Amino acid sequence: MQQTQAIVLAMFGTTVEAALGALLAIRDAVRQAFPQTPVRLAFTSNQIRRIWNRRAADPAYLAAHPDIPAEILQVQGPLAAIANLQDRGYDTLIVQPTHIVPAEEFHDLRSYVNGLNSIRTLKPRWQPFKTIALGRPLLGAYSLKHTYADDILIVARALAEDAALARRHDAALVYMGHGNHYFPSGGLYLEFAARMRQLYPDVRTLIGTVEGFPSLEEIREDLHLHGLRRVLLKPFLVVAGDHARNDLAGPEEDSWQSILIRDGVEVIPVLTGLGEQPAIAGIFVNHIAEAAADAGLKLS
Amino acid sequence: MQQTQAIVLAMFGTTVEAALGALLAIRDAVRQAFPQTPVRLAFTSNQIRRIWNRRAADPAYLAAHPDIPAEILQVQGPLAAIANLQDRGYDTLIVQPTHIVPAEEFHDLRSYVNGLNSIRTLKPRWQPFKTIALGRPLLGAYSLKHTYADDILIVARALAEDAALARRHDAALVYMGHGNHYFPSGGLYLEFAARMRQLYPDVRTLIGTVEGFPSLEEIREDLHLHGLRRVLLKPFLVVAGDHARNDLAGPEEDSWQSILIRDGVEVIPVLTGLGEQPAIAGIFVNHIAEAAADAGLKLS
Amino acid sequence: MQQTQAIVLAMFGTTVEAALGALLAIRDAVRQAFPQTPVRLAFTSNQIRRIWNRRAADPAYLAAHPDIPAEILQVQGPLAAIANLQDRGYDTLIVQPTHIVPAEEFHDLRSYVNGLNSIRTLKPRWQPFKTIALGRPLLGAYSLKHTYADDILIVARALAEDAALARRHDAALVYMGHGNHYFPSGGLYLEFAARMRQLYPDVRTLIGTVEGFPSLEEIREDLHLHGLRRVLLKPFLVVAGDHARNDLAGPEEDSWQSILIRDGVEVIPVLTGLGEQPAIAGIFVNHIAEAAADAGLKLS
Amino acid sequence: MQQTQAIVLAMFGTTVEAALGALLAIRDAVRQAFPQTPVRLAFTSNQIRRIWNRRAADPAYLAAHPDIPAEILQVQGPLAAIANLQDRGYDTLIVQPTHIVPAEEFHDLRSYVNGLNSIRTLKPRWQPFKTIALGRPLLGAYSLKHTYADDILIVARALAEDAALARRHDAALVYMGHGNHYFPSGGLYLEFAARMRQLYPDVRTLIGTVEGFPSLEEIREDLHLHGLRRVLLKPFLVVAGDHARNDLAGPEEDSWQSILIRDGVEVIPVLTGLGEQPAIAGIFVNHIAEAAADAGLKLS
Repeated sequence: MQQTQAIVLAMFGTTVEAALGALLAIRDAVRQAFPQTPVRLAFTSNQIRRIWNRRAADPAYLAAHPDIPAEILQVQGPLAAIANLQDRGYDTLIVQPTHIVPAEEFHDLRSYVNGLNSIRTLKPRWQPFKTIALGRPLLGAYSLKHTYADDILIVARALAEDAALARRHDAALVYMGHGNHYFPSGGLYLEFAARMRQLYPDVRTLIGTVEGFPSLEEIREDLHLHGLRRVLLKPFLVVAGDHARNDLAGPEEDSWQSILIRDGVEVIPVLTGLGEQPAIAGIFVNHIAEAAADAGLKLS
Repeated sequence: MQQTQAIVLAMFGTTVEAALGALLAIRDAVRQAFPQTPVRLAFTSNQIRRIWNRRAADPAYLAAHPDIPAEILQVQGPLAAIANLQDRGYDTLIVQPTHIVPAEEFHDLRSYVNGLNSIRTLKPRWQPFKTIALGRPLLGAYSLKHTYADDILIVARALAEDAALARRHDAALVYMGHGNHYFPSGGLYLEFAARMRQLYPDVRTLIGTVEGFPSLEEIREDLHLHGLRRVLLKPFLVVAGDHARNDLAGPEEDSWQSILIRDGVEVIPVLTGLGEQPAIAGIFVNHIAEAAADAGLKLS
Repeated sequence: MQQTQAIVLAMFGTTVEAALGALLAIRDAVRQAFPQTPVRLAFTSNQIRRIWNRRAADPAYLAAHPDIPAEILQVQGPLAAIANLQDRGYDTLIVQPTHIVPAEEFHDLRSYVNGLNSIRTLKPRWQPFKTIALGRPLLGAYSLKHTYADDILIVARALAEDAALARRHDAALVYMGHGNHYFPSGGLYLEFAARMRQLYPDVRTLIGTVEGFPSLEEIREDLHLHGLRRVLLKPFLVVAGDHARNDLAGPEEDSWQSILIRDGVEVIPVLTGLGEQPAIAGIFVNHIAEAAADAGLKLS
Repeated sequence: MQQTQAIVLAMFGTTVEAALGALLAIRDAVRQAFPQTPVRLAFTSNQIRRIWNRRAADPAYLAAHPDIPAEILQVQGPLAAIANLQDRGYDTLIVQPTHIVPAEEFHDLRSYVNGLNSIRTLKPRWQPFKTIALGRPLLGAYSLKHTYADDILIVARALAEDAALARRHDAALVYMGHGNHYFPSGGLYLEFAARMRQLYPDVRTLIGTVEGFPSLEEIREDLHLHGLRRVLLKPFLVVAGDHARNDLAGPEEDSWQSILIRDGVEVIPVLTGLGEQPAIAGIFVNHIAEAAADAGLKLS
């Protein structure tokens, strides 16, 4: 019988070559977990896709970067990735975002999936899709079955190594999340930090975001209140790309590292994307398996 | 020209007679602001509606409660409230929830509105609705134009009197929100509390929720950390109904009041619903005006 | 266990008191077939509803027409009829149009039903509707299971009495359907007439429509071609209302009767609505039962 | 400024190489009319696409058919055709079917377009599509502005050459349409034939369909009634593919040609697809222009 199931990994994407490893690591974990099922990458950012498409057409770039895989150079958005699978006979898809929280990017992706799932042909056998199941972000999404509280606990457990590293440095653990102005994701970040402090009470874990609430100000206030003078500074982002290199640990005076140093805090930056941590990639694998199971599918 | 605009106030509802005042106060503020526009109440809770419907059919109850208005006794859900207006020729509606955050109740109401707005007759003149505009909850909702940060600041400013009251008592100000397990509203509550502390720095404002994160535990920890021994305890709920009377300030040993007293904290409960505070009712009025304006309507 | 199923009969409506009988006859047949299930009437025509609403408020009219049932005087449109049932706890509805063909009115009604069925609450138990099933018009609608050809044959068989009456008069049988400009219903009428001629070969059955194709011209041409000089003229409409009384058999010179008489054809008008014929009312009953069965429901 | 408009021609498709010309002729007419706008072909039939995809991978086939254009060999379905345009930055599409009537194929295509148009990103600038406008079939579709009656008249005028050819042969003009069991398209065909007879009264034009009503029986009865013994037999199909070669004019005893010959009728088959007639291709061009104009677009 022909395989008609496939997986689409919907990623924001990155233009930083060195940061691609985090995305490819998630892809590899998914391929290893479901070896019979094709896995396609899609980048949701139009701007990032255009940069890769330009690079793909630039012989000098290609010669200088022989290791960039073709699926990155030719990467498409989620709509084309899904439609091209459909055109080849894959009618049962799991679309798994690598988003952290259900905010703008997830909202938009869900609208794509809902739009495609709303197509109804007169005869069921001509349906373009039997189903497109949508996996949830790392910290969960509006699910009666898989609640945020559970998802947050799973992530907090998976980051034991971060707490251990901070402990070894006798440092607080400070994460930078992305945040946003339009979806109230702040509570997810703060609940995650609270859970970390509960699981690893000897390490003070704090989190702030680049956009929206909570900000670095809340972190500085807490460090001050608790008299903490050394922090492990780490992105709470799938890839350690632009935000990690500039906003978090860049040399500009308004990077978090610069600000904290001016506060008299010793900063140990750790520029690893969450996708590079196998325990986190494994959570995305689980979200795929659960989205499939919730849709009555079995992946192999 | 015939008036074809109307307003539906979608409220969770309450069965506590004494708490009805908060809902009627919002209604009155809306009627006063838009005197030419009919205003209908709808209760979204099926259970609460059924209790009122039973009471409406119970002569003993009616005799004992002559002051309950007919529109409470006969209250319908949002679908029937909207449809009966449509049947009478009102084709342009503003549905304003009195929810605090965009969580389950708002999600469901929005699905009602989206479903009704999706109706397309062949001829535009037979459209049941020209538009149904949906107002946003007190603390905002997914809006590019009216961001959470702005909405939270407006609410924090409107509650200056709460801060003043706490200050007069030399007490921390502790709010109980509702919270939920399925929508990440915790950040909105926490951002609101952070904003209160910023606006009124001499009063430590904290907030927890009945369901989900943040909980009373976070409050107790903070009170302990800051050595605070007296709190003004107030519902961050539109009506001071069951939650306020039982979970917040009830005599049971697991009420917030009981727990805080056992912690050695002096508790001053204030059982006022937010709807009873004119500044808050005024925000709902503004949300109606803005929902109308964003839909190109002018209410009068 | 509480009955939560109900039936809504969606009718265009009529303002002609004498024509109401056809609608009430369908209602009665439905009530008799499903005695445990509430049946509500809805009129889809805004103009007709408004006339009834005015009459309902006019004491002189009421005194002069004591026999008009309250459910006609207070009749609502389909949205309010559905929503008021939902508000009383009916979450499983069959909406049965009394339309003849799937044209504008059915398209619009289907959009209402689709819009309401699209409502999705977070928790399944708060869904306003478990399902709203939509029955098909007399001559069918886009169904893989119940094809037009089958539905047309059923109607042609049910109208044996019309053919018999024409035969007794030694007349051709000429029907006037409604027709429309926007949905290609002409083929349904013509297929119906072809099937009648096949079932009752000794009677030449022809059909035309008030709007669109086929028109009276096609009928006149056929009568001429076949040398037919006497016709039984009958509305192919649920009620013998305005169209029957004016366009079909009115005294104006452009009524079908007047035109045919000028052609030298003897005309025997029969002003009976299809709804008055029990065999036709029985088809609507069957369409309700089949819509319910196709939705996995059992009516009683 | 970058061109972001494109046209997708959605065709059922054909596997008959000799019949491809009709489809390519429509494509060429569209390209000529809108030279600045990319035009993509899509085949809606999964089975036909798969045959072409197999051929594209078969070196022997390719060697034997060097003239088949790459866009046929690589042809995709409408979803992939649309999505790949979107991925390259085309956000404003006109999808023009080459269907004759609005039946199953058009219904399904419309559902694709509606599904894609329903996608709503939070920020308008990330919308995948500004709009996807759907052109109507040759004989029209549910449009208030472009009614069937008008569209049918336009087609009947465009087929003056068919009537002239029949006239030269002193033959009736008999068309074979496709027809279907689920959408009542019969009236469109019959109205078209009636309009032809009106425009070209010296030629008796009749039409039947392969599936559903009207069938060949109605044609035979009419030929008999009018004593017609010679017919020009022509497909009323965009391509003269399988149906034309087999059902219409094939050697099998149940082909229309065989049956008519047995009736004693002389048959002159004309195996031309409608797409090969420039006047018809021009109507599809007009439908594209009107769909664009109705959506507020200007194509160039």
